[in-house]
Amino acid sequence: MSVPGTLILLRHGQSTTNAEGRFTGWADVPLTAHGQKQAAAAAELLARDGLLPDAVHTSVLRRSIRTADIVLQELDRSWLPVHRTWRLNERQYGALTGRVKREVRREAGPARYQAWRRSLTTAPGPLPGDELARLRADPRYAALRGGGLPAVESLADMIARVAPYWADALGGQLYTGRRVLVVAHGNTLRALITVLDRLTEQEVEDLNIPTGAPLRYDFDCELRPVVRGGGYLDPDGARVAAATVAAEGQA
Amino acid sequence: MSVPGTLILLRHGQSTTNAEGRFTGWADVPLTAHGQKQAAAAAELLARDGLLPDAVHTSVLRRSIRTADIVLQELDRSWLPVHRTWRLNERQYGALTGRVKREVRREAGPARYQAWRRSLTTAPGPLPGDELARLRADPRYAALRGGGLPAVESLADMIARVAPYWADALGGQLYTGRRVLVVAHGNTLRALITVLDRLTEQEVEDLNIPTGAPLRYDFDCELRPVVRGGGYLDPDGARVAAATVAAEGQA
Repeated sequence: MSVPGTLILLRHGQSTTNAEGRFTGWADVPLTAHGQKQAAAAAELLARDGLLPDAVHTSVLRRSIRTADIVLQELDRSWLPVHRTWRLNERQYGALTGRVKREVRREAGPARYQAWRRSLTTAPGPLPGDELARLRADPRYAALRGGGLPAVESLADMIARVAPYWADALGGQLYTGRRVLVVAHGNTLRALITVLDRLTEQEVEDLNIPTGAPLRYDFDCELRPVVRGGGYLDPDGARVAAATVAAEGQA
Repeated sequence: MSVPGTLILLRHGQSTTNAEGRFTGWADVPLTAHGQKQAAAAAELLARDGLLPDAVHTSVLRRSIRTADIVLQELDRSWLPVHRTWRLNERQYGALTGRVKREVRREAGPARYQAWRRSLTTAPGPLPGDELARLRADPRYAALRGGGLPAVESLADMIARVAPYWADALGGQLYTGRRVLVVAHGNTLRALITVLDRLTEQEVEDLNIPTGAPLRYDFDCELRPVVRGGGYLDPDGARVAAATVAAEGQA
């Protein structure tokens, strides 16, 4: 068979709650003007490297949808079908949704704060009942009304919902040689990379994904990454931005 | 069985070539700022009448894609899947593509000009070979490389390509009760309405579709329009705008 296609992972550009230093989760906030510029800059990097996508996947949250729309506009690919799925949503952050990270860190202490943000299995408290009810009434989550809508998620819970999408949707397209762009969220991409690279628990905790920085994966014929961790199209910019993500909520 | 769903037809907002009074066809031009405002205003009418779409179809041309994106953003429905198909493209205007309507009318005379624009079967000359070759190389038309890419189309040719999409994609969704939004082009919608309302040749010639004006169709259980011609959500605005379209190219 032919060589598998290329996967490009992209975290959405800066959102209004990113700018405010808040946990966002499933709250559906827009991009800032800076976030829109980041999306256009990501498209420039893709064009520079000849990485025109021919399949696109996003969450059902507007910050990833809009980022993808801007990337496709810049690449003259707005005509591509875009797959939008709750499985690529940001982590359901439960009771932390909308809270200022710095305040949460001060109240809970650095160890619990870090565990809530980065550990594989720790989860904060659930989303309040009225907010969960609002999500259950949202037509975009109609398929989850049978009880599948999470009130809170650990990263392990996210892996359980992202892995089937990798296997069924993304992997299949890559096997047939397509160039697949996934525009999603920090923790979605951490979950996906955990699956791709078979990360250890420590590696999962240390992984930070910068906004707006395209990350490229190529695969061998068994769909294992040729280079573990992939490669950022702008490695220097991504390193600085990832360090900023790691330091969120501090001082 | 249940009552069929509702169809909403929307011609994209003003494009740059609309503003210049040119034939556009398959040229892929953007919306003007006014066109973007028209899209937002169309969304307001849909919201006013409780017509939140749950299925969306566009052409593969950016003026219809962007119009749909703006409508969905305004309605908080960006998460909906959007179907993008060349079958909903504007008419392939062949040799008239990019020409100023007023100049064409002066050169060809009002009768030929009107026949080219509005008659069922008349077509102007074909697209020059180099421009056709450029379209054939465009990946969005890859499925048409077997020879299906038209060098020019009459409205009858358009009906032949729009009718299968009505039967296979739109009709099926309407039968299952969905609220279907089609964002397309003046002649695409003329072709579709010709099918829906079984227009006579004279009615086809007299039909003008204004930009940015949502047109609603409801159906009986055999998918025939309850009211022939449907109903514009803003009838007065649509009447004025349609008269402007009818007068295009004149003095």
